[in-house]
Amino acid sequence: MSNSTQYFRFPGTFEMHRGGVLEQPVIAYETWGELNSNRDNAILIFTGLSPSAHATSSPEDPSAGWWEEIVGPSRSIDTRKYFVVCVNSLGSCFGSTGPATDNPATGKPYGLQFPVLTLEDIAVAGKGVIDSLGIDSLYAVVGPSMGGMTALAFAAQYPALARSLVLISTATRSLPHAIALRSLQREMIRRDPAWLGGEYGLGPGPIAGMRLARKLGMITYRSGKEWEMRFGRERIPEERPAGDPFAVDFEIEAYLEHHAQKFTGQFDANCYLYLSRASDLFDLAEHGGSIGIALGRIETDRILIIGVRSDSLFNIDQQRELAAGFEAAGKPVSLIELDSIQGHDSFLVDMDRFRPVLSAFFAGDWAALAASRDSLRAS
Amino acid sequence: MSNSTQYFRFPGTFEMHRGGVLEQPVIAYETWGELNSNRDNAILIFTGLSPSAHATSSPEDPSAGWWEEIVGPSRSIDTRKYFVVCVNSLGSCFGSTGPATDNPATGKPYGLQFPVLTLEDIAVAGKGVIDSLGIDSLYAVVGPSMGGMTALAFAAQYPALARSLVLISTATRSLPHAIALRSLQREMIRRDPAWLGGEYGLGPGPIAGMRLARKLGMITYRSGKEWEMRFGRERIPEERPAGDPFAVDFEIEAYLEHHAQKFTGQFDANCYLYLSRASDLFDLAEHGGSIGIALGRIETDRILIIGVRSDSLFNIDQQRELAAGFEAAGKPVSLIELDSIQGHDSFLVDMDRFRPVLSAFFAGDWAALAASRDSLRAS
Repeated sequence: MSNSTQYFRFPGTFEMHRGGVLEQPVIAYETWGELNSNRDNAILIFTGLSPSAHATSSPEDPSAGWWEEIVGPSRSIDTRKYFVVCVNSLGSCFGSTGPATDNPATGKPYGLQFPVLTLEDIAVAGKGVIDSLGIDSLYAVVGPSMGGMTALAFAAQYPALARSLVLISTATRSLPHAIALRSLQREMIRRDPAWLGGEYGLGPGPIAGMRLARKLGMITYRSGKEWEMRFGRERIPEERPAGDPFAVDFEIEAYLEHHAQKFTGQFDANCYLYLSRASDLFDLAEHGGSIGIALGRIETDRILIIGVRSDSLFNIDQQRELAAGFEAAGKPVSLIELDSIQGHDSFLVDMDRFRPVLSAFFAGDWAALAASRDSLRAS
Repeated sequence: MSNSTQYFRFPGTFEMHRGGVLEQPVIAYETWGELNSNRDNAILIFTGLSPSAHATSSPEDPSAGWWEEIVGPSRSIDTRKYFVVCVNSLGSCFGSTGPATDNPATGKPYGLQFPVLTLEDIAVAGKGVIDSLGIDSLYAVVGPSMGGMTALAFAAQYPALARSLVLISTATRSLPHAIALRSLQREMIRRDPAWLGGEYGLGPGPIAGMRLARKLGMITYRSGKEWEMRFGRERIPEERPAGDPFAVDFEIEAYLEHHAQKFTGQFDANCYLYLSRASDLFDLAEHGGSIGIALGRIETDRILIIGVRSDSLFNIDQQRELAAGFEAAGKPVSLIELDSIQGHDSFLVDMDRFRPVLSAFFAGDWAALAASRDSLRAS
């Protein structure tokens, strides 16, 4: 947590979507820019599974945020014009209440006593922050990946609160391929003896399991095409240790190793398990009986959906289905399909493709957006 | 090993492709049909990573083989017409010498003392079996998946031995996406404390790690589209155990669990590690300096390449690259692209698509093959 992190504490009991309660949970968030006098220029950002609320740098915390090139003064989401709020998800471990937080009833971390977490809960927690800031109409709710599903959970529960929606590489529900991958990641962590049935307390925790889960995450977040271009069959220059025929040898193995080491220790294992499961559980159809009914209820002036053709985790068909669903419900929707080669993670790295699309949308330049859509579709 | 398994023991020292030797290694194999008087109707089949030599049933072993619907009397690879030989790969654990076999020098299993295994070694071992049967010209060498890479390693080392090649869902070399997945599977096994640095001996071995590796295998062998149609978001009917928020819940999780349990105990962990690594190491370009040179050296009358569009492990671009390489080298090649939805495993399950293509090829019905190619390309 940085100097720029703010905290909102719910005043009473927070009722969870699938049962159970939290007493006075805390939500960590950051803001950039100024709320205007009409209090109607706010943008709420929900994150993917692992980031904190630190979407971008600020004078209080000059370290780069996870969406540094998109959010800021004169950037695509222009903080001179908009008041931007990013929340750390309920259940995460960057200041918000989650499985790693002390349970006030026991004085020990919740661990597996934390109630079942859903994206609906994360959305309600975000609404609490917005309420506390005196905002009752949002210019936009924005979410990539799990954050996009959270944005849909938000819109399903507060259909009139957001005047626009920006959904990036996301889905109306998790499909079995993604469920299988996340279920396996959770099993890697749970089968690490150091997980101790979730009771690893203040110890190191299931580091080996988290490393494996992170590596599988990286494989599903990027694309084979990108790695073919970046790494091919290159070997690492170092001598391999004698006697270990399975030591790191290819560059791609060293790359995964590097990312796994960076992640482990940053993220709490139980929080990871809960957030991962929350993604699996999400199904927008539960809001009304079908995806179509749920989408039809959302009162939003404008919807932007961005999908990436090389994304194998939230595939392009899911973006098309989402756009078609909004269209069938008579909603004004723009679908932008990008040829980024970085797979699901493209929104974090392929700034050359994402920046112009988001800039046009947040500048209200619908002609530019339509043009980028056409040129991108034609590409 | 079944009643129908035969064994060939190399009479002396077997020199491994990357150094090291094996003393008098054994190769398990099965045969079906009769060698004709010209001794020129033999077909050699190399397997994927995990099967035994039991490709199909026989009077001696009526249990179904791994390619039961393809190999047999009146089937696509017709054992009334051809003498079919399938070898258990060197390094595997179904009768052939591998890391689980006793090292004659120590009387204990080789374990990690087994030399580095390559697909070239597996090909040479297959050649030994063929020699022992008095065969010096093969009607065809056939290989799906890793077996296809082995067939290429065979053709690179014995360019004039096979009159045709059938390469299914395979590659000229492993790309970083596949290497990343296999490297992670190996790490899952090696990080299981029960692996004991490869010295698990007669104990249960790294069952937890093998289960994880098999589940990741299943995810990469099948396709998301298939699972969407088969499982969707269906839940298992049973009550979930209280107190475990991460127990199996979705049908897809139960399916993976079932397959993992079936695999574990059947396959030796160290053998898995060696064969997996052998796939990573394969690069046909090492035979001559480039893929093009290597392909150009293969003297084969006819090459059939079958690829599946939903295959994410050995993707369709790799099949096209292989076909284009043969074509550029002036070789007679047919590329058949199938719209099977079962991903990499389609050759094991989508018999309706594979049977007619293989039947036409092995009947020598080039017109039917060309027609199937055209109709399949058009589909």
